[in-house]
Amino acid sequence: MKAVRLHEYNKFPVVDEVPEPTVQGPLDVIVKIGGAGVCRTDLHIMLGQWDGRMHPTLPYTIGHENAGWVHEVGSAVTNVAVGDTVILHPQPSCGLCRACRAGNDMHCVNAFFPGLSDNDGGMAEYMRTTARACVRLNPDTQPKDVAALADAGITAYHAVRKTIPLLYPGTACAVIGAGGLGHIGIQCLAALTAAKIIVVDRNPDALKLAEQLGANHTVVADGNQVEAVKDLTDGAGADVVLDFVAEEGAENEGFAMTARAGSYFVIGYGGQVEIPTLDIVSTERNIIGNIVGTYNDLAELMVLAQAGKVTLHTKTYPLDAAVDAVADLDAGRVRGRAILVP
Amino acid sequence: MKAVRLHEYNKFPVVDEVPEPTVQGPLDVIVKIGGAGVCRTDLHIMLGQWDGRMHPTLPYTIGHENAGWVHEVGSAVTNVAVGDTVILHPQPSCGLCRACRAGNDMHCVNAFFPGLSDNDGGMAEYMRTTARACVRLNPDTQPKDVAALADAGITAYHAVRKTIPLLYPGTACAVIGAGGLGHIGIQCLAALTAAKIIVVDRNPDALKLAEQLGANHTVVADGNQVEAVKDLTDGAGADVVLDFVAEEGAENEGFAMTARAGSYFVIGYGGQVEIPTLDIVSTERNIIGNIVGTYNDLAELMVLAQAGKVTLHTKTYPLDAAVDAVADLDAGRVRGRAILVP
Amino acid sequence: MKAVRLHEYNKFPVVDEVPEPTVQGPLDVIVKIGGAGVCRTDLHIMLGQWDGRMHPTLPYTIGHENAGWVHEVGSAVTNVAVGDTVILHPQPSCGLCRACRAGNDMHCVNAFFPGLSDNDGGMAEYMRTTARACVRLNPDTQPKDVAALADAGITAYHAVRKTIPLLYPGTACAVIGAGGLGHIGIQCLAALTAAKIIVVDRNPDALKLAEQLGANHTVVADGNQVEAVKDLTDGAGADVVLDFVAEEGAENEGFAMTARAGSYFVIGYGGQVEIPTLDIVSTERNIIGNIVGTYNDLAELMVLAQAGKVTLHTKTYPLDAAVDAVADLDAGRVRGRAILVP
Amino acid sequence: MKAVRLHEYNKFPVVDEVPEPTVQGPLDVIVKIGGAGVCRTDLHIMLGQWDGRMHPTLPYTIGHENAGWVHEVGSAVTNVAVGDTVILHPQPSCGLCRACRAGNDMHCVNAFFPGLSDNDGGMAEYMRTTARACVRLNPDTQPKDVAALADAGITAYHAVRKTIPLLYPGTACAVIGAGGLGHIGIQCLAALTAAKIIVVDRNPDALKLAEQLGANHTVVADGNQVEAVKDLTDGAGADVVLDFVAEEGAENEGFAMTARAGSYFVIGYGGQVEIPTLDIVSTERNIIGNIVGTYNDLAELMVLAQAGKVTLHTKTYPLDAAVDAVADLDAGRVRGRAILVP
Repeated sequence: MKAVRLHEYNKFPVVDEVPEPTVQGPLDVIVKIGGAGVCRTDLHIMLGQWDGRMHPTLPYTIGHENAGWVHEVGSAVTNVAVGDTVILHPQPSCGLCRACRAGNDMHCVNAFFPGLSDNDGGMAEYMRTTARACVRLNPDTQPKDVAALADAGITAYHAVRKTIPLLYPGTACAVIGAGGLGHIGIQCLAALTAAKIIVVDRNPDALKLAEQLGANHTVVADGNQVEAVKDLTDGAGADVVLDFVAEEGAENEGFAMTARAGSYFVIGYGGQVEIPTLDIVSTERNIIGNIVGTYNDLAELMVLAQAGKVTLHTKTYPLDAAVDAVADLDAGRVRGRAILVP
Repeated sequence: MKAVRLHEYNKFPVVDEVPEPTVQGPLDVIVKIGGAGVCRTDLHIMLGQWDGRMHPTLPYTIGHENAGWVHEVGSAVTNVAVGDTVILHPQPSCGLCRACRAGNDMHCVNAFFPGLSDNDGGMAEYMRTTARACVRLNPDTQPKDVAALADAGITAYHAVRKTIPLLYPGTACAVIGAGGLGHIGIQCLAALTAAKIIVVDRNPDALKLAEQLGANHTVVADGNQVEAVKDLTDGAGADVVLDFVAEEGAENEGFAMTARAGSYFVIGYGGQVEIPTLDIVSTERNIIGNIVGTYNDLAELMVLAQAGKVTLHTKTYPLDAAVDAVADLDAGRVRGRAILVP
Repeated sequence: MKAVRLHEYNKFPVVDEVPEPTVQGPLDVIVKIGGAGVCRTDLHIMLGQWDGRMHPTLPYTIGHENAGWVHEVGSAVTNVAVGDTVILHPQPSCGLCRACRAGNDMHCVNAFFPGLSDNDGGMAEYMRTTARACVRLNPDTQPKDVAALADAGITAYHAVRKTIPLLYPGTACAVIGAGGLGHIGIQCLAALTAAKIIVVDRNPDALKLAEQLGANHTVVADGNQVEAVKDLTDGAGADVVLDFVAEEGAENEGFAMTARAGSYFVIGYGGQVEIPTLDIVSTERNIIGNIVGTYNDLAELMVLAQAGKVTLHTKTYPLDAAVDAVADLDAGRVRGRAILVP
Repeated sequence: MKAVRLHEYNKFPVVDEVPEPTVQGPLDVIVKIGGAGVCRTDLHIMLGQWDGRMHPTLPYTIGHENAGWVHEVGSAVTNVAVGDTVILHPQPSCGLCRACRAGNDMHCVNAFFPGLSDNDGGMAEYMRTTARACVRLNPDTQPKDVAALADAGITAYHAVRKTIPLLYPGTACAVIGAGGLGHIGIQCLAALTAAKIIVVDRNPDALKLAEQLGANHTVVADGNQVEAVKDLTDGAGADVVLDFVAEEGAENEGFAMTARAGSYFVIGYGGQVEIPTLDIVSTERNIIGNIVGTYNDLAELMVLAQAGKVTLHTKTYPLDAAVDAVADLDAGRVRGRAILVP
């Protein structure tokens, strides 16, 4: 089969011919890929930025946002059958550790991350995952339409779900960054809360899209965004800030635009929070870490997607054009999400 | 009456003869002081460090940890009567704003803070507060025995109460600082959770006391405390860290000894957290701000105190010896809490 | 002024000329009534059904769903000023008991209920309430448009707000009764959750309205409603059931249509639950009591109303026609809610 | 091997010689039994009372409270190894359904219940279970000392854990029934809350034990127990009632002794709640169903047990004397819990 493999850091990946993956354990599932999202994290992987943490053996197949159809199952798999349409949680988990037993798959002590850790990902015709990663979808769902929800979507949804108890009517939520994750987060907020949604982005086009997706107010990040958010909240700041950027200063501005007794949710990364403990204590504000969501988060997000409450802008490429997709993403030529279709 | 008043920053306060306070509004309460705690914050006030935030008009009476007996009540006061023994929430609140209506007195938009804001405090024979600040006690409670719970106690209790859902059996809680607040926090943890309690302090004597109060393990803060806490938690770190110091590096060590998916509670202040957003995100850790507690927090803490589950070490001084008490505190000569008794 | 007073049980009330109410305590507020809802509870009061619980001294003024403008305030009132447009929480609370201090106004041990307890209500030109009952509205809000939210609305909202953590995407909520409270509850569910909403009612017209307000499915209560709800939920039953009827058998059908690990919310009353403890235990289902909401619940509901997310169908009557309004309600001739406008 | 098998309803079980169980699936675990609790449910099984629900094929081996040592594991088992000391969750779960993925093992749609459903239980030398049922213990734990925590213990702990947010200092918890489950529940309450514990039982000896285990007050159930509980709570009733009996009238008395805004937890069964919806609504009380706990509940309970915070009274019998144990239990001759030791 064909697979998009990274042979060397700082070079483009190559479409190779490789053997199809096979079932190795009783809970393994082989999925015929219907769509594989291309993510900025793939660019970071190509630059070798994840090598120190994940140590994959090159060459290997990248791609961690995957959906498709079940092709083969191990002997102990009971939740999906050959032919089922599925979207894949990016991080197959063991199901046996304390975190898994509490539903917190993303803190599984035995998890791996195909396409990122030392396991082949989904930019290929077939991919090996496990039963615990498979969320079954309506048979009429097109994998290429939803693949990007497998990582970008689940991460945004996970953070938004945690904000629900905080965002009762009358509160305000500021969203920093209306890009890949942010534009999903805005839709989740609109579907699940009645909070006032204020979106902050440098790009006026992204803000136009944000308005269509449910933003009540938009703010161009021109250096005065903290003041602008305060002006839109009677001087108080936002009760919740969802920061999908969290670098280049956004992380400290995000905290600064958070209201007394409010919470600043960090989802993006790259920057460094630098905050006096007196500022944290005197206003009783929180800084909340966020990572990819749970299996149930992904299942719930798919309910929203299948009800039309969360939609994705995508641009598809054939698998052979993987390098074009990567190059387009790197050059800022992708509107929405690039999806490889084998 | 006598009152301990600050006339000038960077000088000791003076015991003056001043008029007794009088009821001015229908919800006012005049309290005959039975005990007034001397707090490190009083030293900060004397150094002028709170002037920029609170702008009190000098001279004024300090003292924000107060208990005593009701002496006179305004026309609309219904919750206490003359003669009742009371401990006073440090921050009288309006009862009408959103925060008050949700029980979050400490975020009242109209609150004041006698002895800290531009209002006379309790190092005096009498003090004016309001009905909403009065927690009624058993008549046989001695105000001098509990006064320090009014600020140090309520703050420690408030933070511990927030940790309860996180500290199920099998978890570990690290406590940084076993001083005024910390030694109350340890007792609250032991009374309200079954978590493993690990106490970190520079002072071996404080650690001995911590063991008597419920600590399961103690760690001398000698530079290797992060590793020591990890060693005591199978390498994972503590699920919750309560940092009663939060300065001189403790604030970043505190985050470093927090486990994946754990929460670092900031209670002390003075330092600055400096943490890459990648570290927050990749482990989904939280930084939780904490301030003085609610009225109900103080009422609950008094239940623990009256049941003997939280006790205080105190050293009493007559009101005339207020300067001695302040000087002893400043010189590190007070074991436990200094209490002025008019 | 004119006031609608009940002189004798089992007779219609009378529009009397009475003195205007006056400020009696420092927290009192006199409100010029702009709209007073006529509620089925008023019919129950007229039949003497509340006499045994509330013991009002006849004659007295009924009316417990009130909105208007502040006319006069007591000396300690700080949250509203003369001329403010306000809606009134039906149960003024003390602000000093444990329940009030936790935000649970409806469990205040000192509360009263004008128009129901021995205090004059709002079917009059002016009414006396207290500062703690006043929610300030946008000046351009018409009191007659929102008055019915003061009791029917807050009760429905309070129950729905408690269901939010249970109603994540993929869950189903059954609503029994799409009348006065139910049609508000449906709108709140649609605004605050992404659950599938199934509405059960005997009246096909009510079900048509329910569909317009956000119901995903409707079920005519023809004796097969339990099976119908199970059919719409893959045999499982609804994760949450909101029962606005709770009499004439609805209360036991409501429990029967609740899913394993689900919760049956009782809001209406009149019937009796009769359930084997084995059925409760073996499926771990809950029966949740619900009463009028908190002050903050009412404030939050007004945010939804002012955003157009919750709307009311009303029919207005002049105060002089109060008997017509009551008779129309009793005869089933009122579509939506009857509102008296002085 | 020897196994205690039921051949016919309404007759004693028989100690048979049967083949040892073998690994059949990749997640299977064979456990060498070290202790098997004898439970009242075993008496109900012998009387055929569970036949209509569970339909086991006779003869089969009973015993659902089991602990021992891992004897053999299937190919995909990673959480335990041969030789490990383990206690067994009574209901092996699939790990793949929504409930399992949220940590709610007891609502697994594919679970079975060895010794109760059509699967051999643990009154035998060996037993087959699955990886997901095994909680690993300290190697020095004696299985016979903890076996009864596997069902009686986990059920009591699960209910108590749900009460923790309700039982802040100053609240009261009434416990109805200080027998097998109740005496564990009392210890869990004392370990995890600072609530006032009031224990109600017909048996003065059980009440004496309750006092030793942490009860603050005891009440003989002599017909006046509702009033007695109200007297001990200033007339309010208990904020939480844990009913381990829930039959013969206890179920309605339990609700009657629950305070306004309180919660009545049903754990025992046999009776029928009969409560007017007006009583539920006007006081906003809840009736909370409870079933066996989660895997993590059992793991947490074992932490309490290994710390000495929960202890069991047991009487051991050799496996050959199983009929004696059953007969002693039936005749009320067992103090604490009867444990079979192969």
